Parts: sequence; C-alpha cells; structure tokens
Amino acid sequence: MPDAAPRTGFYPGTFDPVTNGHLDIIERAARLVDRLVIGVAENIGKQPLLPLDERILCLTTEVRKPARRTGTTIDVVGFGNLLIDAARGQGATVIVRGLRVVADFDYEMQMFGMNRHLAPDIETIFLMANERSQYISSRLVKEVARMGGDIAGFVPPFTRRHVLARLGG
Amino acid sequence: MPDAAPRTGFYPGTFDPVTNGHLDIIERAARLVDRLVIGVAENIGKQPLLPLDERILCLTTEVRKPARRTGTTIDVVGFGNLLIDAARGQGATVIVRGLRVVADFDYEMQMFGMNRHLAPDIETIFLMANERSQYISSRLVKEVARMGGDIAGFVPPFTRRHVLARLGG
Amino acid sequence: MPDAAPRTGFYPGTFDPVTNGHLDIIERAARLVDRLVIGVAENIGKQPLLPLDERILCLTTEVRKPARRTGTTIDVVGFGNLLIDAARGQGATVIVRGLRVVADFDYEMQMFGMNRHLAPDIETIFLMANERSQYISSRLVKEVARMGGDIAGFVPPFTRRHVLARLGG
Amino acid sequence: MPDAAPRTGFYPGTFDPVTNGHLDIIERAARLVDRLVIGVAENIGKQPLLPLDERILCLTTEVRKPARRTGTTIDVVGFGNLLIDAARGQGATVIVRGLRVVADFDYEMQMFGMNRHLAPDIETIFLMANERSQYISSRLVKEVARMGGDIAGFVPPFTRRHVLARLGG
Amino acid sequence: MPDAAPRTGFYPGTFDPVTNGHLDIIERAARLVDRLVIGVAENIGKQPLLPLDERILCLTTEVRKPARRTGTTIDVVGFGNLLIDAARGQGATVIVRGLRVVADFDYEMQMFGMNRHLAPDIETIFLMANERSQYISSRLVKEVARMGGDIAGFVPPFTRRHVLARLGG
Amino acid sequence: MPDAAPRTGFYPGTFDPVTNGHLDIIERAARLVDRLVIGVAENIGKQPLLPLDERILCLTTEVRKPARRTGTTIDVVGFGNLLIDAARGQGATVIVRGLRVVADFDYEMQMFGMNRHLAPDIETIFLMANERSQYISSRLVKEVARMGGDIAGFVPPFTRRHVLARLGG
Repeated sequence: MPDAAPRTGFYPGTFDPVTNGHLDIIERAARLVDRLVIGVAENIGKQPLLPLDERILCLTTEVRKPARRTGTTIDVVGFGNLLIDAARGQGATVIVRGLRVVADFDYEMQMFGMNRHLAPDIETIFLMANERSQYISSRLVKEVARMGGDIAGFVPPFTRRHVLARLGG
Repeated sequence: MPDAAPRTGFYPGTFDPVTNGHLDIIERAARLVDRLVIGVAENIGKQPLLPLDERILCLTTEVRKPARRTGTTIDVVGFGNLLIDAARGQGATVIVRGLRVVADFDYEMQMFGMNRHLAPDIETIFLMANERSQYISSRLVKEVARMGGDIAGFVPPFTRRHVLARLGG
Repeated sequence: MPDAAPRTGFYPGTFDPVTNGHLDIIERAARLVDRLVIGVAENIGKQPLLPLDERILCLTTEVRKPARRTGTTIDVVGFGNLLIDAARGQGATVIVRGLRVVADFDYEMQMFGMNRHLAPDIETIFLMANERSQYISSRLVKEVARMGGDIAGFVPPFTRRHVLARLGG
Repeated sequence: MPDAAPRTGFYPGTFDPVTNGHLDIIERAARLVDRLVIGVAENIGKQPLLPLDERILCLTTEVRKPARRTGTTIDVVGFGNLLIDAARGQGATVIVRGLRVVADFDYEMQMFGMNRHLAPDIETIFLMANERSQYISSRLVKEVARMGGDIAGFVPPFTRRHVLARLGG
Repeated sequence: MPDAAPRTGFYPGTFDPVTNGHLDIIERAARLVDRLVIGVAENIGKQPLLPLDERILCLTTEVRKPARRTGTTIDVVGFGNLLIDAARGQGATVIVRGLRVVADFDYEMQMFGMNRHLAPDIETIFLMANERSQYISSRLVKEVARMGGDIAGFVPPFTRRHVLARLGG
Repeated sequence: MPDAAPRTGFYPGTFDPVTNGHLDIIERAARLVDRLVIGVAENIGKQPLLPLDERILCLTTEVRKPARRTGTTIDVVGFGNLLIDAARGQGATVIVRGLRVVADFDYEMQMFGMNRHLAPDIETIFLMANERSQYISSRLVKEVARMGGDIAGFVPPFTRRHVLARLGG
C-alpha cells in the first residue's frame, strides 16, 4: 500500500433521512480512512421524503461531531451516476457499507459481485451495525414518524426537525 | 485518524489448511492496511489436520506473493489466547473477516457483538468472498482430499502437498 | 403477572385478504390470551385490493369459528395510528406476529427492536406458521386469483367471494 | 417414467432483460429435458423496460446457441395466465427455477408450496446459479445501464443493444 | 380459554451456563404466564461444562430476581426425556423459545414442526432476543472464558463464579 | 439431449435412517429420470446409528413402493469415495438434492460450487421438501427416538423397527 497517497473511503446511501445507525457507521468508517466521502444518491425513481439538498444539509450538519471526534475529514456530496464512478470521481479506493440483517447481506453480495466486475480496483468493506442501531432503517423511521411516533431515539435532533417539517408542515 | 501511526490489521483463522479463498482475502486486506498480521488459532478442542507449526509454515510461504504484489508487510503468528487480546498484542486496531454465506453472517454477527463489548476500541471489517472462492471452505477441501478428489483448484501447490502428505501420502 | 387483569393480545396486519394462515395464527393466539384484538391496518400508501371496511367485515365473519372453538373473545378493529399506540388503545400488553420465512424473521427483528424502544412495556410473541400455511401469503393469493387460479385452499369461502367480486366484478 | 412421452420443461420469468445468468440456467436445463419452453410473463402491474414482444425477440435470438449446443428444442412463448396453467398448456411436467440468494430461496419455497397445492402433478426443479452469474439480476442490470455503466459482462450483445436503445433512444 | 386453569409455560435449554440473554427471556416469559418452569436438559451426548445439578443451582439462584420482579412463580427442573413429555409432566401448555439469529429460526422451525406433530395440544411461542443479548450464546461465553476473557457482561456474578471455578480448577 | 441414452440420477445421503422426507424426494426424483441410484455414504468419521448394510437394507425395502408407483428402476448402493466419482461410477449425469431450510441452501451452494469445479459435466438439481417433511431430519428423528418419542410419523415401519432395535435392543 503506497504510504504517500491518503486513503479515501466512499459511503453511499439515500439517507432519507440519515439515522443514528448511519452516523455510527460513519464515525467508525472515519477511523479507518484518511478522508471519508458520504455519497448521497439522487435516487431517481423512488420519491424520497427529503429532497437531495435537504438530505445533504442534514448530513453535512450531523457529520460534524464524528469528524471532530475522529479527526478525519468527512465530505458530503450528491451523486446521480454509477456508484463506482461516483467513488472514483472522489478519488476513493474503498466503498463502505453497513450490514444489519440477512436481507442486507443478500443484496450486498449481489452489488459487491457487480461492482467487482465493473471496477476490480475498488474494494468494498462492510461494517456490522452495532446493537443499538441494528433495527433502525430510514424506511421504518419514516413509517413511525408518519404515524405520529417519536423518532428521537433513531435520528439526531436537526434531522428529526427536517423530517417532521416535511411530514407535518 | 492519526496519520503518524501505521494501521495494523489482524486476520484470524484456523487455516487448516489455508485456501485460495483465504489468500484472496489476505491480498485484498493487505491493500487496506499498512501491516497485516495473520493470526493462526491453536484451536484447542478441535483436532486439526495440520499441526500449528505446519499451518504457520504454509501461510508464511503462501503470503509471499500477496505481500510482494501489495507492498504490505504480512506477518504470520500463532495465538492461543482471546482473539482481541491477540490482535492488541500485535498492535492491531482492525480485525478482518471474510463472509461467504448466511451462516458466516450469523456467526460473525455474534462474534462482532461479543468483541465489541470486550474491546470497543477494535473495529472489525468484513470482506465478501469473491465469486471464485465463495464455495471454498477448509472443511470441504479436507473432505474432498480425504476422498481422493483433486484439491488443486482450491489450495495453492505448497499447501496442497502438505495436506496430501498428512492424509496418507 | 397480576392475576386480576385479563391478558389482551393484539394481532396486527393488513389482511388483504385474511388467509387460512392468518386464521390458524388467530386460533392459536386466542388460546394464549383472555381477549384477542385483530388490528386491521388502514395501510395508507399501498393501495389494497379490499377496502378497510370489507377487510374488517371478512375478518369479523371468519373469526367466529376460532372464537367459538377457543372460548376467547376476538374483536376486530381498524387502525391508522402507530401499532403500539393501537395496541395500547385496546388495553393489549402483548403483540402477536406470525413467522413463515427468513424474510419475515428479518423484518420482524427490526420491527421488534423499534417497538421495544418505543414501548418497553409491550411484549411481542411470535408463532410459527404451521406446515399447511407456511407458503400462504396475501400477496400470492391475490396474484393467483388475478390469474384465474383457484384460491379455495388458501382463504375461507366468505372471504374468497369478496376477493373474486373485487377482482372480477 | 413413461419412456415414450418426451419430457418438457417450462422455465418462466420476466426476462426484462434476459441475462447471462438466465442463459446459463437455460443451457443447463436444456440438458435435462427433451424440450424446453421459456415462458415470458406479461407481468401486468410492474411496468417492464422492454415490452413483451421485445423480450420474446431477445430470448428467441439468445437461445439459439444453447439450443445448438445441447441439441434440445427451446421454444419461447409469452404468457399472461397462471404459471402452472401456462406450463400445462405447453405439455410441461417440470418447472425450472434458478436459485441465487437466500431471498430467492424464501420466495421460491412459497411459490413451490402454492403450486404444489394447485397442481400436484407438476414438479419444480431448482438449479443453483453458477459462480459467474450469482450476482446478476435483471433489476441490477437495468440500474447499472440507467446510470451509464457497462452491462456487457451481464447480458449478451443483441439484448444489450435493445436495453440501451430503450434507455437512451 | 378456561379462566380457571392457570397457564404454565416451559422454557427448555441446556443452560451451560445460563446467560443474561436467557434471563431476559425468562423475565419476559414470566410476564406472559402464571407459572414458568425452566427445564434444564440433561443433554446426554454433548459433554457440558457444568454438571446438571450445578446448572440447576445457578438457574435457581438467578431466577430469584425475575420471579420477584414479575410476581410469577419460576421453578427449575432437570429433564432427560422428550421435551414435550417434560413440558406435559409439568402441566405446561406453552413452550417458550428465544430467537437470536437465522440459524435459530431454521432449527426452531424444524423443532416446532416435529413437536407440533407429536403434541398438537402444546403451543410454542418465540421471543426475540433484545438488542443487548442477541450476540450472547453459552458456547461463545465458554470460549471467551476459556481464553481468559472477561464474561462479566454476559452472565450474572453467581453463575460466572461457577464457570470460572470449573474452568480454572 | 441424446434421446438414446437413458438419464440416470444419483441421490446421495447418509440415510441414518431414511425418513419419509427422503422417500418423498426419491419418488419425485424417480419421475424425472429413467433410473435413480440412491447412494448411501459410508460416512467415515461420524459414527452412524445404523451400520452401512442396515441403512442399505432399509432403503432397498422402502424404495420398492416408489419404484412400483413411478415405474422407474431405483437402485441402492453404498459409496465411500467422492460423491461425483460415485455418481460417475453409476453412469449418472444428474445429482439430486433436497432443500428444506436456509442452512441446507447455504451448505448446498458450497457443495454445488465445489462439485461444479471438480466435475463440470455433472448437473445438480434441487427439489424442495414438501410441507409435510420440511421439518423432518434424520438427526431429529434419532433424538426423538432416543428420548422415547414416537417416530412413526417420520419414518416408514420397516425402518422404524430397525432404529428402535438399535436404540433399545
């Protein structure tokens, strides 16, 4: 491994909204690389709750703490092209993905196989969700919020306000 | 991430014997860290086919190629203590594990949870097996070899000779 | 466990339509509690085949037999709020869920985690589908019916008539 | 098994588009039966990328090679009715399905159970995806193509041109 | 459900040793029944670390707290016969089992099927492990203890002393 | 597919003892091939309950009914060599395996991958267990029998007598 070039990691997702589970992965990933780029997928097709710029705003705000605690630069960018192209465009050689349940494992194994074929030079590393965020998914968070449930345990305050504003405003 | 301290990864296993699948993980892990330590578990309880020193010998031989290709130092050590203690003893902050099938995911999730509790400062990263080694396990390799099948596609030549010599040769 | 207060269970679902699999779970759950409430989710977002009142009507009709056989009161209610709030509103301390396949297990583990966080006082118990209904899902029943297949083995007669009327009417 | 009557297999799917993974299953299935019918589901409900006639055209073209190599007649038909009725209409006694990941296993177990109930005289056999196509799915192929990724490794050339024409035309 | 007869639950296991995960299931199960019997399997065949009487002693000690907190009688008995016969011998109509990972689900589905066939009158209910004990298994606890790791986070103090005494002589 | 050469299938297993689940697979497999060979693994290493000749005797007796009902020749042979060599030695081009649960899928995917590598000319087809035998495994049957449970629902009468004689005689 060339010691001169800093390692850049790319953590892609829709982040609609970013959850405490994502933030745990982000902080842990930030300890593994010299620079971490959060890639926010435009996600054409699915209609997100939060528009892209709002998801980027939430992430930019929420990653400040993990960036400070780890001393690693964490950038947030939107992307609408192929995951591996977006990673390459950021100079990343490592993609970071979280694993919570078997369905994740299944899906990620297929994505990994495809990306391996398309870009053999980019590695993917997987981090297991910690025990407190294994059950947190953006989809369930939105369902709970829509039904009037309290999502304070699942997303940080700034993001929570944006979710509630979009839902109830 | 402090740029001064080099990152050391620890890849533990029984390696009875080391397979092409292990070697693929080793080479890919070597690109992610500054130094990679392969920890060969003494594995008290299960009776291995190859004694510890022979498993270490095989690994020491087989990791030369990935070490050369990646430019990363790869050390091979035996260990009989707790995985996280062995990792710490080598100055490692990252444990590397491979994932092939759902049963791996299940088991690793439990190991991850325990290790996280015992050593919150050590991270575990998972690499998916590539398509050619997803079906290779040390156990099946030994079964095939015992039955007289050709294991040349599953383990490298030096290790294969040791396996065959132990089995009956 | 206070011996005075009767135990109330809450069995939520979309029931679009109720199947023989649901009815097996209902009868078995009715043997475990003093009162069972079937909660029919309004399910905003997904367009159901049967409107809420028709799903409630089907269930109300179909639960008569299990209620008679078990001697347990079985009520059917619609709900549009959060699952745990609906359960609490009915005085239930136990949520009942069925498990058929691994995908159910995955999803339920996440739901359980979220509900545990939101309402630590409410327990969830899982019943495994019996062998005859493990493969029955409302979605497949609708697919089969839409294609002209006979669903008599999967849903009871009254409900079957409602499904066919909606599809073919 | 009556040696007079030739065995006909039915391999159903949406094939939107047909992938190298499908073609591997087709060739292997063709070695197991005397005649293989590829059933292309009209798939009412989901909006496919390629219309039915184009999916049939692609398959008709792509199955020529496996038909030649195996010496088995391979027919391609569209169907809008129930899978088992379509199979029976073609004189098939065996349905062929591929398995790649756990989610497939889950879903296929339910489909198998339903079909077994509806048509006890029709058997379903499952073939595991080979190592090179385990990660290939029509859905991911379309995602990659939409994002401008190269799908040449996942679908054959004729089909690839049709996919690109539909996407980019 | 006859309101006169109290419900008795049977929670079987090897409990070699009892873990915090078991105790969480025990406390939650105790809230669901009027009397809970912990059945400690003699487990002929596998050589346990703790002999049966010591496992019973540990459980008898550790269930005092959950019994007090829930107000439910919790008895501990050894058994060497068939699970359903042991449950019936205790007057239990409900078997309680915990679920942590997919391998549990797989195994329990088979056990459930067999028991359902052998004793249709006995129900099995499943409780999901909570987030803090999902990764705790008696096997891993023993492995960690054998290697000198601290198991204080996984088993209660009294049981921990017995495990260490057996291991450390 | 050459219409002259009859298709021979090979169904391997330990069959310790043969169960109703095996016999269901055997009968269904017999409808798919012209000749079916049941391969009984000597299974060096694991100590079986029934010696090889007794397992062969049980199978030879129990396959008479499926052979008569399907009109297919069903032979029973022991084998101690590699699965694919045993299959080839019988002139088989197809290996038949049953699938019940996810753990089977996992294991079979690895076996399939290895066998595909060792013998690309031999195909493996998988049959799903039917609903009545999904939960039946030889291991659980023996456990139940050892504990004095009635295994009449899981194995046919002749085999049951042999199991009981070995256990209790």
